[in-house]
Amino acid sequence: MKRTLGTCYYPEHWPTELWAKDAERMVDAGLTWVRIGEFAWSRLEPTPGDLRFDWLDQAIEVLGKAGLKVVLGTPTATPPRWMADKHPDMFAVDVNGNPRGFGSRRHYCFSNAGYRAESARIVELFAKRYGDNSYVAAWQTDNEYGCHGTTLSYSDAALQAFRKWLREKYQTIDALNLAWGNVFWSMEYNDFDQIGLPNLTVTEPNPAHSLNFRRFSSDQVVSYNRMQAEIIRKYSKAPTSHNYMGRITDFDHFKVGDDLDIATWDSYPLGFLEDRVGASVEKQRAYARQGHPDFQALHHDLYRAVGKGRWWVMEQQPGPVNWAPYNPAPLPGMVRLWSWEAFAHGAEAVCYFRWRQAPMAQEQMHAGLLRPDRADAPAMAEAKQVRDEIAKAPDVAPAQAPVAMIFDYDAEAAWAVQPHGAGLSYFCLFFETYQALRKMGLSIDILRPETRDFSGYKVVLAPGLMHMPEGLKQALTQANSVTVIGPRAAARDGEMTIPTPLPPALPGLDVTVDRVESIRPDTPIAMQGGGAITGYREMLVGGAEVGLVAEDGVPVTMSSGNITYLGAWLDQAGMSRVLTPVIEAAGLTALSLPEGLRLRDTATERFWFNYGTEAVAYDGRQFAPASVTRELLPE
Amino acid sequence: MKRTLGTCYYPEHWPTELWAKDAERMVDAGLTWVRIGEFAWSRLEPTPGDLRFDWLDQAIEVLGKAGLKVVLGTPTATPPRWMADKHPDMFAVDVNGNPRGFGSRRHYCFSNAGYRAESARIVELFAKRYGDNSYVAAWQTDNEYGCHGTTLSYSDAALQAFRKWLREKYQTIDALNLAWGNVFWSMEYNDFDQIGLPNLTVTEPNPAHSLNFRRFSSDQVVSYNRMQAEIIRKYSKAPTSHNYMGRITDFDHFKVGDDLDIATWDSYPLGFLEDRVGASVEKQRAYARQGHPDFQALHHDLYRAVGKGRWWVMEQQPGPVNWAPYNPAPLPGMVRLWSWEAFAHGAEAVCYFRWRQAPMAQEQMHAGLLRPDRADAPAMAEAKQVRDEIAKAPDVAPAQAPVAMIFDYDAEAAWAVQPHGAGLSYFCLFFETYQALRKMGLSIDILRPETRDFSGYKVVLAPGLMHMPEGLKQALTQANSVTVIGPRAAARDGEMTIPTPLPPALPGLDVTVDRVESIRPDTPIAMQGGGAITGYREMLVGGAEVGLVAEDGVPVTMSSGNITYLGAWLDQAGMSRVLTPVIEAAGLTALSLPEGLRLRDTATERFWFNYGTEAVAYDGRQFAPASVTRELLPE
Amino acid sequence: MKRTLGTCYYPEHWPTELWAKDAERMVDAGLTWVRIGEFAWSRLEPTPGDLRFDWLDQAIEVLGKAGLKVVLGTPTATPPRWMADKHPDMFAVDVNGNPRGFGSRRHYCFSNAGYRAESARIVELFAKRYGDNSYVAAWQTDNEYGCHGTTLSYSDAALQAFRKWLREKYQTIDALNLAWGNVFWSMEYNDFDQIGLPNLTVTEPNPAHSLNFRRFSSDQVVSYNRMQAEIIRKYSKAPTSHNYMGRITDFDHFKVGDDLDIATWDSYPLGFLEDRVGASVEKQRAYARQGHPDFQALHHDLYRAVGKGRWWVMEQQPGPVNWAPYNPAPLPGMVRLWSWEAFAHGAEAVCYFRWRQAPMAQEQMHAGLLRPDRADAPAMAEAKQVRDEIAKAPDVAPAQAPVAMIFDYDAEAAWAVQPHGAGLSYFCLFFETYQALRKMGLSIDILRPETRDFSGYKVVLAPGLMHMPEGLKQALTQANSVTVIGPRAAARDGEMTIPTPLPPALPGLDVTVDRVESIRPDTPIAMQGGGAITGYREMLVGGAEVGLVAEDGVPVTMSSGNITYLGAWLDQAGMSRVLTPVIEAAGLTALSLPEGLRLRDTATERFWFNYGTEAVAYDGRQFAPASVTRELLPE
Ligand SMILES: [Zn+2]
Ligand SMILES: [Zn+2]
Ligand SMILES: [Zn+2]
Repeated sequence: MKRTLGTCYYPEHWPTELWAKDAERMVDAGLTWVRIGEFAWSRLEPTPGDLRFDWLDQAIEVLGKAGLKVVLGTPTATPPRWMADKHPDMFAVDVNGNPRGFGSRRHYCFSNAGYRAESARIVELFAKRYGDNSYVAAWQTDNEYGCHGTTLSYSDAALQAFRKWLREKYQTIDALNLAWGNVFWSMEYNDFDQIGLPNLTVTEPNPAHSLNFRRFSSDQVVSYNRMQAEIIRKYSKAPTSHNYMGRITDFDHFKVGDDLDIATWDSYPLGFLEDRVGASVEKQRAYARQGHPDFQALHHDLYRAVGKGRWWVMEQQPGPVNWAPYNPAPLPGMVRLWSWEAFAHGAEAVCYFRWRQAPMAQEQMHAGLLRPDRADAPAMAEAKQVRDEIAKAPDVAPAQAPVAMIFDYDAEAAWAVQPHGAGLSYFCLFFETYQALRKMGLSIDILRPETRDFSGYKVVLAPGLMHMPEGLKQALTQANSVTVIGPRAAARDGEMTIPTPLPPALPGLDVTVDRVESIRPDTPIAMQGGGAITGYREMLVGGAEVGLVAEDGVPVTMSSGNITYLGAWLDQAGMSRVLTPVIEAAGLTALSLPEGLRLRDTATERFWFNYGTEAVAYDGRQFAPASVTRELLPE
Repeated sequence: MKRTLGTCYYPEHWPTELWAKDAERMVDAGLTWVRIGEFAWSRLEPTPGDLRFDWLDQAIEVLGKAGLKVVLGTPTATPPRWMADKHPDMFAVDVNGNPRGFGSRRHYCFSNAGYRAESARIVELFAKRYGDNSYVAAWQTDNEYGCHGTTLSYSDAALQAFRKWLREKYQTIDALNLAWGNVFWSMEYNDFDQIGLPNLTVTEPNPAHSLNFRRFSSDQVVSYNRMQAEIIRKYSKAPTSHNYMGRITDFDHFKVGDDLDIATWDSYPLGFLEDRVGASVEKQRAYARQGHPDFQALHHDLYRAVGKGRWWVMEQQPGPVNWAPYNPAPLPGMVRLWSWEAFAHGAEAVCYFRWRQAPMAQEQMHAGLLRPDRADAPAMAEAKQVRDEIAKAPDVAPAQAPVAMIFDYDAEAAWAVQPHGAGLSYFCLFFETYQALRKMGLSIDILRPETRDFSGYKVVLAPGLMHMPEGLKQALTQANSVTVIGPRAAARDGEMTIPTPLPPALPGLDVTVDRVESIRPDTPIAMQGGGAITGYREMLVGGAEVGLVAEDGVPVTMSSGNITYLGAWLDQAGMSRVLTPVIEAAGLTALSLPEGLRLRDTATERFWFNYGTEAVAYDGRQFAPASVTRELLPE
Repeated sequence: MKRTLGTCYYPEHWPTELWAKDAERMVDAGLTWVRIGEFAWSRLEPTPGDLRFDWLDQAIEVLGKAGLKVVLGTPTATPPRWMADKHPDMFAVDVNGNPRGFGSRRHYCFSNAGYRAESARIVELFAKRYGDNSYVAAWQTDNEYGCHGTTLSYSDAALQAFRKWLREKYQTIDALNLAWGNVFWSMEYNDFDQIGLPNLTVTEPNPAHSLNFRRFSSDQVVSYNRMQAEIIRKYSKAPTSHNYMGRITDFDHFKVGDDLDIATWDSYPLGFLEDRVGASVEKQRAYARQGHPDFQALHHDLYRAVGKGRWWVMEQQPGPVNWAPYNPAPLPGMVRLWSWEAFAHGAEAVCYFRWRQAPMAQEQMHAGLLRPDRADAPAMAEAKQVRDEIAKAPDVAPAQAPVAMIFDYDAEAAWAVQPHGAGLSYFCLFFETYQALRKMGLSIDILRPETRDFSGYKVVLAPGLMHMPEGLKQALTQANSVTVIGPRAAARDGEMTIPTPLPPALPGLDVTVDRVESIRPDTPIAMQGGGAITGYREMLVGGAEVGLVAEDGVPVTMSSGNITYLGAWLDQAGMSRVLTPVIEAAGLTALSLPEGLRLRDTATERFWFNYGTEAVAYDGRQFAPASVTRELLPE
């Protein structure tokens, strides 16, 4: 595989005369890909039915003739203003019951039939017109599903669709009442048409109600995307993709990915550190100009799974962004580091967002490869350095990682519905476990929860999987891997009910969660021998072998053979105490990397990344700040 | 009086076959009482008029025959879904104008006439059917009035009822305008029908408007409850009760209690410490697994007053709950300690909530005496220990306490309307005063503000009584007790206006509040000799004898004979300086108990409770952590 | 000019019998002015058309005959309740779409035509009746425009008026689309009637949309006020005024002031320190009873500019107020200090709010010169001291200050729309710059952004002027003053777009902002030699002379001749390093005043104000706490 670079371009923002010059400079900068079109609906159809595709024809031609490959985005993320006149009910509704109206982007409800039909129409127009255009080398459906909290909509369209979804799932209202436990608090329904959306209740709604609404909402995204993908496939052989936003986890990306060829995502390391990583203030300060050392890596691994191996960074931060609470400039060298890190994790392409900073509208303070006055911005030089380094680099040699972690969007939903302790989330548990492995120098594959074949993995981890189908329990406990399950794994059946026998009820492992507690962040429970429980704990009983034990004598881990159940959310020291013996039992080596230094292996190369602002020494090597270091692995 | 134990049971949640076995285990555990029915409406009337009481008949029979006494709750806290079709206007409306809909509980507005009629109908069905059932030994109306902020409703039903209430109170609109001072800011009304609810104003509404709305809202709860109580009394001789929730203070419990025989309340020490005690973070950490050492005691004393001597704990926390920000497990021994503390304060019964943890719906993470799989949960052993200890204990000998504090729900409302300083509340002032007394080892009676006979009390305290009717002023200043009044006592007339002569205008005490200030928490004012003013201060002038003085020379206390006026909110050190001489002047002894140790006297016994996690020594005795110690008092 | 005192009085709050006695005591206290009428509509027109002006006639006569001059306020800030029946659409609507209803004050939308007509009617009634009343010596339109967030209204009336305003401004929808850059995210409109208000969008609206809405909203205030002023002028020769509230900056006070003769403002130093100054907690604690040492001064200088030289304090805090989070009493001496500080800055009059504390309604806890029981409150003695001091003082001799700062309400709006970093505001930048100058002992004039003649000023500062018209750029860079421009100056064109050539593009100064970043408050960037960048930074490039430099080598200031561009928000130490050489280059002396000590010069006198709670020594002088010291300047 050839590593490639690209950028996001908006010909509609600039005079036609500028396009050829821009294309030439893109090629000169070593870019292969140019994504266009995804926000251009108002220029393609300024009033209903008045189609103006000529400029887009011309833009594709200018870019293509210059030697660039076009990724063409369908423009459904930003319907024009006239759409709201045709479909006044098209807007999503927020949790307080207010419509989320026109004036920015993503102003539509996935359940609105009128807007679905309009989307199908415009996608078909795109697909027909450019389906066999040789410059159009890939497709993107919509953009950033779920961004700005747009997965969940409390609209009337959503309500009607939710009732239909429930009717199909449960068939009878008695079945639903039984599954949800609606006898509790007299919440029983007589008919599907009595069911409301789980907002605006006096106190919290039934968690089964909320979880089903989240599953339904995820399904709406999946079916909306499938509609677009199927239309494109009718007319084009070019691969399809969607561009996901970082830490948007409220729909099932794996299921969206099933209908597409490639997964792409947006990597904004500095913006994310400020607005969604959830790092401590100390880390936010230490990495303010570099980003969190593990957050991008996790997403790279996740989208490699979502894309079934084929994935890109579609929007790579090139300088300060406009949307985080604070928007610093990256440390010199970081744009290069981020680019190479994506390649080390197997990216086919890294595209910078955006070509030239726009002087107007919402993102006027978002840096590009060029300044608004067309001069080079600082990122340009780093992009060109990456271009030169790619040219000299050996071919990509992807490899299965030795360690696997199961990531489950449904578990994220279940935890969101019932965190049990303030601030607890599945994503955070997963991310902290991932960080502990990364600090040990391990390369990781992320697996979807439908995985049943774990062959090739020396270690498999399944933290926080609230619901584990029997098949997964069987597969995991019978795998040849060393396996760590928990905490809060198999804690609920498929309907958000505590099963009997009590969790985790894993085949071959005599462990039962007798009781669960959540604890204040300022009252961690020390473990005998070091490390501590934070946030969440299960009291384990049973005949399995006790491993780590809390200072009050309650077991924290219990094992049988290759299977360990972990009954607590641990701090990093505790996580290391659980994982080190597991890693070593699997025949792997657990390193102890210094702060800010990370590595990632391909089949042939080891990449070192120093996210720190200071040089570090490790194992006889010196790593400059904000640096990338490549070594050939011994064959 | 015989001390008794009980539990809350939901036969509708479990297979019929399980009931007899459950009943047998309850009896075996030494339980006397079983509360049922209060959330069961959808099973009793699955569709309008389709009555299915047979299962409840059977449940009562099974439980009764096993030897248990049934407390039967009316199911009005959770109307079924079909009720919303019959009465679409039944919902309360929140302060922002959003209806608080179906999907959890307490989804009704006290002012809705349609729902009142439905409530009367179902209560009459209950009362008629079980009024002379020998197993039904007590009644409960509804459950936890006001929980989840449901006392105040901004619905149209509330608006109409409020106007009617005002018309009855003021007769003419001129009288209302005058009483409220509506000439201010041209707020005068021409007609009662112009009056709105005090939400959604540009800046704060007239405090008289807000206070009247709170008084009205309280009256709506009282009349709704009276309606239920009167129906039950028509058909049954068994005592009636309501089950109140901790620190729900926005309606007048004394007035609700006037229509009932027994007051019961819900004691969730760990949940409360996290979500409503208002303790410092240090205290929240120190008592995370024990609860605040004074919060339960205050409620025990309060509900003894509300129940006119007859009171229970209806829901005693037996393990982690589900609803607090953090939900830790109690320290071993605390379930026993909490049970005995209730008995020491005079409880007739302590009932554990709930019998068995429900695997489904909102409270699936709420511990019970049994686990969801029917095995004993940890609390069961402690409950059985209490059972055994009760059996060996001497008979209960209640006694009037030497110290009384007046608690006024109307003052709580007035402070809520006009705290004057951020975070100041009547409840907190009362609670901090109560704590200061408890640390001195004093047993306390709580009195309602209508009290005029204080005989038998050596000390009476009246902090924060914003409005004091003349009769109360007279009775208090003429009592034989040593009396401490203030701060912020008699500060307003009955209509939230500053009276002339200026407050407190107490007979026989030449003290005037010249001026009032609230201060930042980080700018306490030291007193000469120790202790400090925090939050709120009055500048006292007049001829009475000056007691404590602030460092700037302004008097903090002034006295004449037995009457002291306290003109500031003091920290605990300052409170001790005010109260110690008062206690001693009354011939009582002011102890200085170590952190976490508390005591409570009955006529014949002294109970010691160590809420601490460490053993403490005091006065030659040793107290284990989380322990109860009983001594016979010298006769 | 003669310095005068006054007070705010509400005859409608008190029995008629009391008026003469009150008037006599006012005169005795040395008061010249009495403001009345501004909240009295419901007493003047209790039902529509039923006019009852007789009591106001009488009140004016009683006050006037006693020797007082009346300032008569139009009562439009508090329309009576019946107005809402006549004009149910009169209310402003908040950003969430909720009407802001009756029950307090300022409950009207500036765009509502019905309420405008009612306002014109009542103002005409006032003006006709009292236009030639000799006791009415000045007029006030309405009261505190914008207070309680009432400038921005999201009502339908505002929507319609906004569309009309846009149509007039842009003429064609294409022009608007182009100006706003609506091609971005397909936000293009086909018609003005498609434009909504910039609330309730999915993510942030177009900043050009928001800024235009803020400009429109400001214009609505201006035209509403002009309507009142023009009516009054038809009937009266007495000067007109409006009374502005501190730090209400969301409409253009200069433009309102253009239609009036005098500007007055409300000086509540303690309330402001708690609720709007934005000072650190340490400063809030240190000055809790004195107020911020620079906040009042800034407003004095600002309203001197708004009033084109004629300005008053209309409401001077005399004791604790009721509306701040905490409401402490002022330190003894502060009421006198605040009064003299206003005079030192050129106030014609200082009026205390209010004469007597009201016992009822919203402001019952707001102190006055009298207590509610008519006794003197503590402020009275200080007011009388000021009276005596005025009598002995030399005549006022106003002088142009040596230093000028440009204040631009439109820049405040632009920063509010796009702060770029959390917590950054134009006002704060301006205020911190102003503080740095004040600590150097400088007297400052504030200039409006339309100023083109800077003659007489030795130093001119223009921080944060997001948009600078060419004329201002020319005038500033050609002035004889030493000039400091930036940061974030000329950063946008008039339509909130980044201009090319890139900012600041100042004539004769070769400086370009290459890139902009905002930084976390906990990651300041040190400057070489001392001081630090906080919050906001620009990377400066170009051929101008580099001045201060950040530790990473990026220039912080660049200069040519008398013009310096400052490319960062600096801390006070950094500000001092920028300003000291500038001040000295202009031939002025930069003092270094001790904490809490400030000065202000008139033509003949130097006033020293010690805001501290401790005595301070400076330059051989001793200053008592909370003291005013006057010295004659050498001629
Ligand atoms: Zn994006
Ligand atoms: Zn309860
Ligand atoms: Zn005011």
